[in-house]
Amino acid sequence: MKFIAEIDVMPLKELLDPQGKTVGKNMHHIGIEGIQDVRIGKHIQLVLEAASEADAREEVEKACTRILINPIMEAYSYHLSPA
Amino acid sequence: MKFIAEIDVMPLKELLDPQGKTVGKNMHHIGIEGIQDVRIGKHIQLVLEAASEADAREEVEKACTRILINPIMEAYSYHLSPA
Repeated sequence: MKFIAEIDVMPLKELLDPQGKTVGKNMHHIGIEGIQDVRIGKHIQLVLEAASEADAREEVEKACTRILINPIMEAYSYHLSPA
Repeated sequence: MKFIAEIDVMPLKELLDPQGKTVGKNMHHIGIEGIQDVRIGKHIQLVLEAASEADAREEVEKACTRILINPIMEAYSYHLSPA
């Protein structure tokens, strides 16, 4: 079975996100009003082939913890659906 | 009213995504099986204050088109919810 995993990788809440802060502080200079907070992370789409949803989840979690995420600075969440 | 916009910014389908391709090609070297495609983009959370959902959507779309997205290389989608 083919699955698509949509993974969000975001800087941990406890950490400053300097890229997001900079973008947020400058929004009103270009006419965008009401912005209170901006956080910027990564979005990753994985297309994978697996025997079952449980197997697919296992591979996605391995991919996140072994290569995609830096656990010191980032947290991830994902949504898996059949492709 | 306070809203949270969850924005995904992805490289256009027509374009190669060299970062994603590199990650995808190397997954099996670290024991992750079945990966067929990887695409890597950005995930942006905006917290904003707006009078209505329509106003919030307008500000989010302005933010995307004026500062967050390079329309030559990227496309965006977002989900808006009350905070």
